[in-house]
Amino acid sequence: MAEYLFLRTLLRRDVTKAGMNVLVVYAHPKPDSLTGALKDVAVRQLRADGHEVRITDLYAMGWKAAADTDDFGPVAEPNFMLASGVAYRAGTLSPDIRAEQEKLLWADAVVLHFPLWWFGMPAIMKGWVDRVLTCDFAYGAGGKALPRYGAGVLAGRRAMLVVSVGGKQPSYSDRGINGPVDDLLFPIHHGILYYTGMDVLPPFVVHDTIRLGAERFDDVAHELRRRMSELPELEPIRYRPQGGGDYDRSLRLVPGREERGASGFALHVAS
Amino acid sequence: MAEYLFLRTLLRRDVTKAGMNVLVVYAHPKPDSLTGALKDVAVRQLRADGHEVRITDLYAMGWKAAADTDDFGPVAEPNFMLASGVAYRAGTLSPDIRAEQEKLLWADAVVLHFPLWWFGMPAIMKGWVDRVLTCDFAYGAGGKALPRYGAGVLAGRRAMLVVSVGGKQPSYSDRGINGPVDDLLFPIHHGILYYTGMDVLPPFVVHDTIRLGAERFDDVAHELRRRMSELPELEPIRYRPQGGGDYDRSLRLVPGREERGASGFALHVAS
Repeated sequence: MAEYLFLRTLLRRDVTKAGMNVLVVYAHPKPDSLTGALKDVAVRQLRADGHEVRITDLYAMGWKAAADTDDFGPVAEPNFMLASGVAYRAGTLSPDIRAEQEKLLWADAVVLHFPLWWFGMPAIMKGWVDRVLTCDFAYGAGGKALPRYGAGVLAGRRAMLVVSVGGKQPSYSDRGINGPVDDLLFPIHHGILYYTGMDVLPPFVVHDTIRLGAERFDDVAHELRRRMSELPELEPIRYRPQGGGDYDRSLRLVPGREERGASGFALHVAS
Repeated sequence: MAEYLFLRTLLRRDVTKAGMNVLVVYAHPKPDSLTGALKDVAVRQLRADGHEVRITDLYAMGWKAAADTDDFGPVAEPNFMLASGVAYRAGTLSPDIRAEQEKLLWADAVVLHFPLWWFGMPAIMKGWVDRVLTCDFAYGAGGKALPRYGAGVLAGRRAMLVVSVGGKQPSYSDRGINGPVDDLLFPIHHGILYYTGMDVLPPFVVHDTIRLGAERFDDVAHELRRRMSELPELEPIRYRPQGGGDYDRSLRLVPGREERGASGFALHVAS
């Protein structure tokens, strides 16, 4: 075990020293927005730290948000989800989707920058998820399971959200009226990023962002630079892998595994 | 109190007898999908029950999913969210957005039909939410609060989700690996529908939908017809109104108001 940890530390160091491949996926309609400014801060820091950075700027690319059968090429399968898998295997997915799948495979880490709109991603970023994470690439269906939740096509990669939230922090706290921000992000963290095998790092969330003053921006940018520099070393959220013995054959958490008093989404985080 | 309840019953009966205005918002790229078939079943039953139905078929309309400044017309406000409010007040929102706002104001009930993709709405429907529910119509910002959570522009209307889910029910149950489906839907139920004032009815969720056989389809359609006929009478989920005294000035739930053992999203449902 000690040897394993030592080796893991060595490998981590190597990655850090050599620099990682980082994919930044960014969604805001205005480049002069807070989200846009924070994306620029993060990218500058990542490059200063020796990482190679590629940017998927969804609005600038005119990214198509709505998944439809035009994405698949000539595929006969009538079920929409299964058809995306047929197209993936046949290599007939549209070029914009294949380019993003290649970027994900290239990346050692993925950072998603977006404003929280109606308690979720902007539609254009949801459309990046819907269209790029196709059947047979990111998930199995129709009786063909693929490894998921801690294993899968993107295993070994790190993922982190940088999220701007208009409302104040207390209203997103444990007892806040909007719901805890960690629970609001669970479907993204656990349901998208961890599902495909990625190690999910704690999110960088900025609250109370409407009319954010210059002084607070400087503080936030300072914090974000620090977080970006920690990207190779940060401890991931300890979600439970599907294959680790915590779930029964119905994929329910085995009784007694949870933290005392835990319920809902919190069941799926180990201590 | 008895008189009030009697009056409320009378008023309800009136609405039922006269028929309601029902807006069906539907998102699936394939008309021959399960989601499409269930939408047709629901619409037929609603019309048979004497309701007037209008349908927003997002894929058929080629709905634009990505919110951007083209939606606003000539607006100088640099903040994107606030700009949507300026455009709303000036009447310069794009015609597709104004048409959907008018439909929402026309409706007594709104039913959203969609498949659960990556634990949320398809991007095209998220884009309907992002673009139609603008600042100053659906929410306040920049120091101008509007009534919300149980009050707001859509108060008095009923809302219900009809959702197709590929995975099996146990994996979406209280201890299921995907998280409880009610928690996954909370950001839509509470954060979008209840936020704008609507009474949110329990969702109609169909699981294990890939290769659903004809026999199961008949059972599901039967259940859905029954649920549609109950639309005017169903008891809403008892979310806590923001203005009802349950929240303090930081918008945190006052200690002791919760159900014994409740945490997370469940705090915001009264017994």
